Amino acid sequence: MKDLTPRVTTGPLPASRRVWHAGVLHPQIRVPMREIDLHPSAGEPPVTVYDSSGPYTDPAVEIAIDGGLPRIREAWIAGRGDTESYDGRHVRPEDNGLAEGARLVPEFPVRHEPRRASGGRAVTQIAYARAGIVTPEMEFVAIRENMGRTAAKQALLRDGESFGADIPDFITPEFVRDEVARGRAIIPANINHPEAEPMAIGRNFLVKINANIGNSAVTSSMEEEVEKMVWATRWGADTVMDLSTGRNIHNIRDWILRNSPVPIGTVPLYQALEKVNGIAEDLTWEVYRDTLIEQAEQGVDYFTIHAGVRLHMIPMTVNRVTGIVSRGGSIMAKWCLHHHRESFLYEHFDEICDIARAYDVSFSLGDGLRPGSIADANDEAQFAELETLGELTQIAWAKDCQVMIEGPGHVPMHKIKANMDKQLAVCGEAPFYTLGPLTTDIAPGYDHITSGIGAAMIGWFGCAMLCYVTPKEHLGLPDRDDVKVGVITYKIAAHAADLAKGHPAAQIRDGALSRARFEFRWEDQFNLSLDPDTARSMHDETLPKEAHKVAHFCSMCGPKFCSMRISHDIRAEAQKEGMAKMAEKFRAGGDLYMPLEDTK
Amino acid sequence: MKDLTPRVTTGPLPASRRVWHAGVLHPQIRVPMREIDLHPSAGEPPVTVYDSSGPYTDPAVEIAIDGGLPRIREAWIAGRGDTESYDGRHVRPEDNGLAEGARLVPEFPVRHEPRRASGGRAVTQIAYARAGIVTPEMEFVAIRENMGRTAAKQALLRDGESFGADIPDFITPEFVRDEVARGRAIIPANINHPEAEPMAIGRNFLVKINANIGNSAVTSSMEEEVEKMVWATRWGADTVMDLSTGRNIHNIRDWILRNSPVPIGTVPLYQALEKVNGIAEDLTWEVYRDTLIEQAEQGVDYFTIHAGVRLHMIPMTVNRVTGIVSRGGSIMAKWCLHHHRESFLYEHFDEICDIARAYDVSFSLGDGLRPGSIADANDEAQFAELETLGELTQIAWAKDCQVMIEGPGHVPMHKIKANMDKQLAVCGEAPFYTLGPLTTDIAPGYDHITSGIGAAMIGWFGCAMLCYVTPKEHLGLPDRDDVKVGVITYKIAAHAADLAKGHPAAQIRDGALSRARFEFRWEDQFNLSLDPDTARSMHDETLPKEAHKVAHFCSMCGPKFCSMRISHDIRAEAQKEGMAKMAEKFRAGGDLYMPLEDTK
Repeated sequence: MKDLTPRVTTGPLPASRRVWHAGVLHPQIRVPMREIDLHPSAGEPPVTVYDSSGPYTDPAVEIAIDGGLPRIREAWIAGRGDTESYDGRHVRPEDNGLAEGARLVPEFPVRHEPRRASGGRAVTQIAYARAGIVTPEMEFVAIRENMGRTAAKQALLRDGESFGADIPDFITPEFVRDEVARGRAIIPANINHPEAEPMAIGRNFLVKINANIGNSAVTSSMEEEVEKMVWATRWGADTVMDLSTGRNIHNIRDWILRNSPVPIGTVPLYQALEKVNGIAEDLTWEVYRDTLIEQAEQGVDYFTIHAGVRLHMIPMTVNRVTGIVSRGGSIMAKWCLHHHRESFLYEHFDEICDIARAYDVSFSLGDGLRPGSIADANDEAQFAELETLGELTQIAWAKDCQVMIEGPGHVPMHKIKANMDKQLAVCGEAPFYTLGPLTTDIAPGYDHITSGIGAAMIGWFGCAMLCYVTPKEHLGLPDRDDVKVGVITYKIAAHAADLAKGHPAAQIRDGALSRARFEFRWEDQFNLSLDPDTARSMHDETLPKEAHKVAHFCSMCGPKFCSMRISHDIRAEAQKEGMAKMAEKFRAGGDLYMPLEDTK
Repeated sequence: MKDLTPRVTTGPLPASRRVWHAGVLHPQIRVPMREIDLHPSAGEPPVTVYDSSGPYTDPAVEIAIDGGLPRIREAWIAGRGDTESYDGRHVRPEDNGLAEGARLVPEFPVRHEPRRASGGRAVTQIAYARAGIVTPEMEFVAIRENMGRTAAKQALLRDGESFGADIPDFITPEFVRDEVARGRAIIPANINHPEAEPMAIGRNFLVKINANIGNSAVTSSMEEEVEKMVWATRWGADTVMDLSTGRNIHNIRDWILRNSPVPIGTVPLYQALEKVNGIAEDLTWEVYRDTLIEQAEQGVDYFTIHAGVRLHMIPMTVNRVTGIVSRGGSIMAKWCLHHHRESFLYEHFDEICDIARAYDVSFSLGDGLRPGSIADANDEAQFAELETLGELTQIAWAKDCQVMIEGPGHVPMHKIKANMDKQLAVCGEAPFYTLGPLTTDIAPGYDHITSGIGAAMIGWFGCAMLCYVTPKEHLGLPDRDDVKVGVITYKIAAHAADLAKGHPAAQIRDGALSRARFEFRWEDQFNLSLDPDTARSMHDETLPKEAHKVAHFCSMCGPKFCSMRISHDIRAEAQKEGMAKMAEKFRAGGDLYMPLEDTK
């Protein structure tokens, strides 16, 4: 029998502690953050950063993957009194691609009865928000987004161009409620995934990132996928999409969900297609609906639904350089074409909403016609679908469902802003969630970078969540190292976007790290960085000794040439000499060029 | 005795040939390009790309590092009849930091007598351009920039936002002359570096990239530095700066220059400082001038001169988070402060110009006060220096010297465009040459990415050359792998910028690669990419067999789910069915949502 307790990565990041902030409206909530301690010589308090890593980085918590994480939201959900436990759908062999024997990933050892809304209610965060209720999830998000800052202090740091985003100095629970009620933010939080720590996706919050994991028909296992999820959240993934397409989809997903501190998204179409042996034209609404319920009961927090790919749009893609590159989009296009019928996802979208509202599954309306090459960017097909996604947003909102909108893809820099502007306009400011975009096609192996450029830009322009791209994009399934590189690259993009938007807390970490750099506090510089391990190991390649960690230089310039060291000398002299006064007499006014003689 | 023939990387890139285009005005010139062959099934001609790699990728050329490259420009220079050979300055022990015995890097085995202008003439490309002369260098650049395209064909592909850049459909030698005459482009081409293949840096040409190499007091050797130069140009570096600061500076530079197919830049101040034992205040104009002549005679193509750091600006840096982070800037600031005097570089700038015009050394006016952190971006000190660089540009132009302007640094995204706009305004459209900029401070170990984002953006806005940043920035001296990652990242940034500017030839390679991707021509996809080796090895990690190179899927999705394959099915069906007509009847007009019943 297989070992049921695979190892995952645990333990704190360097110099870091997981700390907790209690709620006020809801005193029972404990909001996690990470505090990074600085060297005493800094004379600065710890730097508080957003923490998506869950209990895995808390040494006080014993991690047992076969037990799952604590179900922190269970009491909040039950306490609302609008849901019921029920027996739930039974797992069928086709849910796991008919895997059996040694090939079957074991079921997750603990079974929790699913919950659903009772009496046809909407049990979604948007429904509560519209009813004026500030849920524990909303207060959790408010505290989390503030990262311990106070309004007064941070009001000083506003500096940016927000393109219409309106991030307050201090996030209140009421602000979160209002943003969710307006559909401008979502809190993906299936009532059957109470292990997740609530988070928000919206233009007026920190820019979030998603990491994709998932096995494929060709490679990878449950153990690898659970570790990839833990690993991705350790480095900062705010949500994780399980895009598995091979066997064992159901059981692997259970292991992931029960152990995930972040919302999990899926593309239910992938599993539905497995159930019909990969024959797109054999898909039916019934198989799809059954898959939605299966996944909603497991606790999937958001579904990518490719309901915007409609029959009449397919001809628009025929002359593209790269046709349809979205898997979901191509499957639906093939189905539509084969049957000469409108998409069953489009036709049944209101029924899909009825399922989603009973579990609070958020929608990520898929961009099935996103461009797969620079040549196809911003074309008729892409924007026709985006307009349809705007229509579907209105339907979802009418059903009290939470919605975000997926976006491209491959887009050259000068066409990125048009995507954001159009999305805001036609989708009523529902959060945008983009893949990249990749700003050129010519660098397979480096598409985390081609896309990181586009991601930073669209994040600045208002995109709420950035779906990572790893170095393996277009080439193969990412492994653990690729996942980390993808996550760090996208944390860079998201943070660069927060800075440029003028997020009131964004500069705190940059300032702390730069002060550490200027003061040669090497350990602080490593510890404050997005990837302390890599920063430290790169430094140690050339200067491995402990003594070099306090050295006032590095191997890049060596001791004689260190500009920072010289700057300190200058600062010291300036204080001594009253330099400002002295320099005043040298201020040359409008002289173009001062010959040697004049300045002696 | 040491081996005088270190090994460097040679041999063509995959499926690539070095080809030659002859001049028309100057039939003796042969302009190299790289042709990438595609699989016969593509039915497409080879893709021609810009080639900075020199003879190293040409299997017909025998490379002997101790002989140096062919001196292709020697006859052109001599033919102009305005220069003279002379004995030249003799190498002194302090030129090599007093290295001796086994620690002394051997002199380059072949000594070429230096040339200089005769009779006080300006022998610069700008002088010729202003005189209406189209030099062989200018025609070389024109042919090279066209990459084999014809005006007619590429005129179809104009699509971009150029922010005032004006790249013609087809680059003529006269266009190059005019751009150089106006100072809007430079051709860095010291008459003592006739091995280099001419190239242009300017807003109306392809965006260029520079790679920094150089030993430091702590680490690295001549062999490593020559190989780094060859390696950097193999992957696309358009110029290389030798920033050595340790011993053996003179001899290492000779080895680099004699073997470099691209222009070499330096910061003469670094060597001058070595000559005064690293004591900034001991620097004198005489030592500096001697160093300029030493390097000009060796063939350095451009000098970074930090003449914009003036005494009255130093107080502006005292309250910065990271002070002065430019080595050259901090050295000059220290000198100014110590002597309570104006910078000798500023005071002697006209004499510096007299040296430069006698050898055609271009200037890269250094940004000694560039910001070293997000907090310091676009501050008073930075912009005060930039204005001074604008003044110095006018002086250099008056002396018939070629000039470009260096730029930051650490700048959040929303402050990047202001840098470009101000540089264009105050420096009379002289080419801008920026380091990054880095868009956040928090990712040491990944600063190729934090800066690649900013580099792509400022390249789009009009920056002519992007100075790479490697993953080791802030942490240590880059090794060979770091150099490659830095170069590829910056090739991405430069190309993304060309695409966004609407360069008429930029999309050719993207289109070819995307067609290869769509048609599952895996080998073509690898060969057309910026780094074929990495792309191939990533693909082969999961699908190593040769058969998989023609497979219509990859390990990312596996065979059943490949959207591209499904797109082909759709395209085939569309052709069969006359889909456009069929789809017409499904076109739903303005209906918000079509209930199931209506579409049956």
